[in-house]
Amino acid sequence: MTDLAISFDDVVAASHRIENVAHRTPVLTSATADEMTGAQLFFKCENFQRMGAFKFRGAYNALSQFTPEQRAKGVIAFSSGNHAQGIALAAKVLGMRAVIIMPTDAPQTKMLATKAYGGEVILYDRYSEDREAIGKRISAEQGLTLIPPYDHPHIMAGQGTAALELLEETGPLDILLVQLGGGGLISGCATAAKHLAPACEVFGVEPEAGNDGQQSFRSGKIVQIETPRTVADGAQTPALGKLTFPIIQKLVQDIVTVSDPELVETMKFYASRMKMIVEPTGCLTLAAALGGHVPVKGKRVGIIISGGNIDLQRFAELVQG
Amino acid sequence: MTDLAISFDDVVAASHRIENVAHRTPVLTSATADEMTGAQLFFKCENFQRMGAFKFRGAYNALSQFTPEQRAKGVIAFSSGNHAQGIALAAKVLGMRAVIIMPTDAPQTKMLATKAYGGEVILYDRYSEDREAIGKRISAEQGLTLIPPYDHPHIMAGQGTAALELLEETGPLDILLVQLGGGGLISGCATAAKHLAPACEVFGVEPEAGNDGQQSFRSGKIVQIETPRTVADGAQTPALGKLTFPIIQKLVQDIVTVSDPELVETMKFYASRMKMIVEPTGCLTLAAALGGHVPVKGKRVGIIISGGNIDLQRFAELVQG
Repeated sequence: MTDLAISFDDVVAASHRIENVAHRTPVLTSATADEMTGAQLFFKCENFQRMGAFKFRGAYNALSQFTPEQRAKGVIAFSSGNHAQGIALAAKVLGMRAVIIMPTDAPQTKMLATKAYGGEVILYDRYSEDREAIGKRISAEQGLTLIPPYDHPHIMAGQGTAALELLEETGPLDILLVQLGGGGLISGCATAAKHLAPACEVFGVEPEAGNDGQQSFRSGKIVQIETPRTVADGAQTPALGKLTFPIIQKLVQDIVTVSDPELVETMKFYASRMKMIVEPTGCLTLAAALGGHVPVKGKRVGIIISGGNIDLQRFAELVQG
Repeated sequence: MTDLAISFDDVVAASHRIENVAHRTPVLTSATADEMTGAQLFFKCENFQRMGAFKFRGAYNALSQFTPEQRAKGVIAFSSGNHAQGIALAAKVLGMRAVIIMPTDAPQTKMLATKAYGGEVILYDRYSEDREAIGKRISAEQGLTLIPPYDHPHIMAGQGTAALELLEETGPLDILLVQLGGGGLISGCATAAKHLAPACEVFGVEPEAGNDGQQSFRSGKIVQIETPRTVADGAQTPALGKLTFPIIQKLVQDIVTVSDPELVETMKFYASRMKMIVEPTGCLTLAAALGGHVPVKGKRVGIIISGGNIDLQRFAELVQG
């Protein structure tokens, strides 16, 4: 595993860095969900993480390793939303400047929260402009350190602490379901899960409209697609990362997709039966289990709930539809 | 304390009975809520309890102590909703028959869930009929054991396990805020809290429209009011119980009230910032802290969230308003 970007030890080191700063989120169960799937499900609730998503883990793990010079100048990040908030909050906790490049159509909640955490927001059009180019230019001009949303070892290791905590609490699992966007969360989680429970099968779940991960996994090379239009705004990344892809190839069992209507149904289930607000991207994993896209019957299954950041107005509209 | 209906030992005994049957619900924190109140808040999330409210604790504690004869015939209960579900689910777990007398205007979610747990539902008009009389008649006719929603030692001791678990996790608290309807939850929770942290001040919180508890507490005798019309449907009880009142008089610091608009604002806060669905009654406690009805500044404060059972449609309407 020496050729992979991160190891289990990196995840453990990250877990020590974020201790007492990030929330150790609860693991919930639901007799109703177990009945519906015929499995035993364990929900790792990153919607209850600080700033409402797992992204704080990676962001804090990365920023807390800055040199004094880097801290003095600050951080820059580009993100559809949750990474932005994660970086902004981590920067606030560490007392450093944060500049965030966000798409114009990012959820209002995520944009406002990023600003509330003290982040300086710069907008771009995600369907026509190249956020990486913008990020690199501003980064060079102002001496800011660019922290990408997923393709960075410190980000990946930080996100893996979600699975580390989950398995510490549940013991070995047969299956672990993880959201797939750029692969930061699943590369970290798979690294942790396969070390703690080698027989655990890790599945990535992405929206049907944005199945670049599945295409990449099955063809053996990174496939880039147009920015997909899906309700799962956290998984609209057009391609896997150069660092995340090799780990996914080596440690992940398969990548499956679910439809937007399945995500909305799952969101209603979480709200009505488990009393939780889960953003559409966070619903990918349970939707895969409920929809039979992964053979979970009779298995002990970890369900990562990646986040809960959705405009309340939008949430109300979706659950009423 | 020998003249009181329950002791701390009863709460501890209840905690052993419900262990591995009820959920040990998580205790969450929120930096934002702490900033808004100037306090350190610990949220005991009974909205994540089985059937969505603390009521399962007392119900299971009561039913698991039935004699074989009582188990064979079954249980009968009257309730505005959550006690109904608690009894129905506890009866299902223990394999016994449950007859539930519910008001015609109980939330649809609670009625359907009660039936889904196998409860046989009988409806009555809460503004004109006497549910206790109906309950007693059917109970006598069919040999069912009547378990009232709050004025019963096993119910009170069972509900107290919520505070027991909370303080086990947080250590001593300065203040504990508890919902007040008939007093089952607060009598149990005060019994646990005052034993574990004698300096802890326990406050009851009820809706403005239904301030019978406050009137009773301040006048020294149980005051009965008309069934109050409030969004907090779980606190529409017209009077405290004969067993709960003496404990409240002895162990509770004060009883405060909050308005319906405050409850809706608090519901929005829970949804948007803490990603939780909390029913209006469950919002009473945080609403009291946010509204300055209890002096929480600088204190370590336990916030009981009593439940999360609200029709999703109704929830969507309220948060959009």
